[in-house]
Amino acid sequence: MKVALLGLGSVGQGIASMVLKKGLGITITGLADSKSGIIDAKGINIEEILVRKRGGNPAGDTSVSAMDVVQNADYDVLVEVTPTNISTGEPARTHITSALRKGRHVVTSNKGPIALHHRELLTLADTHHVSLRYEATVCGAIPIIHILEHGLLGNQVKALHGIMNGTCNFILTRMSEEGLSYEQALAEAREMGYAEADPSYDVKGIDPAIKLVILANAIWNLGVTLHEVEITGIDQITPEALRLAGEDDATIRLIAEAIPARQLLRVSPRILPRSHPLVVKGTLNAVTLETDMAGSLTFIGRGAGSIETASAIIGDILFIREQYDGCS
Amino acid sequence: MKVALLGLGSVGQGIASMVLKKGLGITITGLADSKSGIIDAKGINIEEILVRKRGGNPAGDTSVSAMDVVQNADYDVLVEVTPTNISTGEPARTHITSALRKGRHVVTSNKGPIALHHRELLTLADTHHVSLRYEATVCGAIPIIHILEHGLLGNQVKALHGIMNGTCNFILTRMSEEGLSYEQALAEAREMGYAEADPSYDVKGIDPAIKLVILANAIWNLGVTLHEVEITGIDQITPEALRLAGEDDATIRLIAEAIPARQLLRVSPRILPRSHPLVVKGTLNAVTLETDMAGSLTFIGRGAGSIETASAIIGDILFIREQYDGCS
Repeated sequence: MKVALLGLGSVGQGIASMVLKKGLGITITGLADSKSGIIDAKGINIEEILVRKRGGNPAGDTSVSAMDVVQNADYDVLVEVTPTNISTGEPARTHITSALRKGRHVVTSNKGPIALHHRELLTLADTHHVSLRYEATVCGAIPIIHILEHGLLGNQVKALHGIMNGTCNFILTRMSEEGLSYEQALAEAREMGYAEADPSYDVKGIDPAIKLVILANAIWNLGVTLHEVEITGIDQITPEALRLAGEDDATIRLIAEAIPARQLLRVSPRILPRSHPLVVKGTLNAVTLETDMAGSLTFIGRGAGSIETASAIIGDILFIREQYDGCS
Repeated sequence: MKVALLGLGSVGQGIASMVLKKGLGITITGLADSKSGIIDAKGINIEEILVRKRGGNPAGDTSVSAMDVVQNADYDVLVEVTPTNISTGEPARTHITSALRKGRHVVTSNKGPIALHHRELLTLADTHHVSLRYEATVCGAIPIIHILEHGLLGNQVKALHGIMNGTCNFILTRMSEEGLSYEQALAEAREMGYAEADPSYDVKGIDPAIKLVILANAIWNLGVTLHEVEITGIDQITPEALRLAGEDDATIRLIAEAIPARQLLRVSPRILPRSHPLVVKGTLNAVTLETDMAGSLTFIGRGAGSIETASAIIGDILFIREQYDGCS
């Protein structure tokens, strides 16, 4: 399986290092970071690239761009893991559409183009008889999109509820368990590397709302957008509210939920019994699906991380190989 | 998709009623209960059959046997949901091998042949270029086999831990929450229909051990058998033990676990913190996989039930269709 890899940040380096370590029948024939690119049909020396990146150097030739790699490399699957732009989806959207138009499969962790242009991109993939897979855009290592698309065939999914932001869940866990204030817990999350310098994308609930949009469109093909999600963040939660919940053996979690029959698409802090399957700790993510035959199913796992996201990307690449190889 | 259905107990009737209700592109062309059979290439009138069964009558013609259906019906997939015999695997094993030898796919909920003859049956399926799927043999509606086979490609599973018996979990939940004795909780489980008249298959840990064997062989192809599982049941657990665990905010659950690196294959009651993801309530099942890239993943859902098991069977049938249709 020949792969062109765009993006060599934490996720891109995670993918490269796993391919280097495990082989997996994957050869990287094209590669680009934000400033440079390499094309080598015989397979790029990944070890050398990783050493260069860790030394703070560009991965390849500064005269080669990501679009050069998309257009000129010899690959079966484009792996798009450049930084997300949630307003325009660019430049990932152009990378993805160009590869699909060339009849190449695409696997991405990039939330922007999937949240903004899901239907258009999947239609384009269909037209060109290739796959577009995006497991890594939601809930890290939990193979939730795969389960929805292939693991519960015949079931109708009636509702989805989940904890889709590890930063918020970490903050709420610490506030609940240690009686910390929101500000104290946020400071701790920053120290641990779980929160950005500007945490608003997480704590205001934007990030889980984007994931909710991606999942809702994946399940029901509703074509919904971020503007349709009713969003409340966690930045107004007080230790007092958590203490009161605790008195009833309950706690507070930031829940993303979609129930099409009630036209509900919402991210908001909710009081849940401590024994509820969605009440996970720390940076974990959890998703519950309500289905007509399988009943209620809950999936729990790590929602972020370089290797965890690489796991989702690699799972998608190898599932494409399985699907297309099974036919030969 | 033409299906021959062997077995019209609770699971078989669940499958038939879901096919009747939802269509799903499935036509039942052959069918047998313990005393009779029907073959109709144009599709059997399921509604009529279900009425007959509910009236206590044989489903079909008493001169037609299950093996007649296997040999003479026109079908793509044999669905084997006759009662399990864990000593011999029969008659399911003969039904399954006969269908595979005819080049037909097989989907089963029957633990006997899968626990006893996993490698032999999968080899036979491979030889005849067909699928043998058995999602419904373990953990009810949780698509755990599917996730292991297709949802985490590229990952190495290092360990498996789970709650795989709803009867035991119900009894332990009731003992823990209400301070009931084992005998009281068992009586309650019987009243609710969760325990058999002779509950030893469940409470002695045999049932979860069989599921552990099936999962361990599915993941690692170890060819292990029930004799290799170290088994302790729950019938010696006292309310006092649960009370003591409760004092440390912990509880007791019957955990099945497999760790090949430590040659560990065990079913035993374990003390777990109440907040542990595997501590689910009532008749729920839960499975945790420890993997090298995706980290620790937990899956929770209903472990039994007519429609839940039908969900697993139907998911397998439709995944076979997806795999083979994708090629045409």
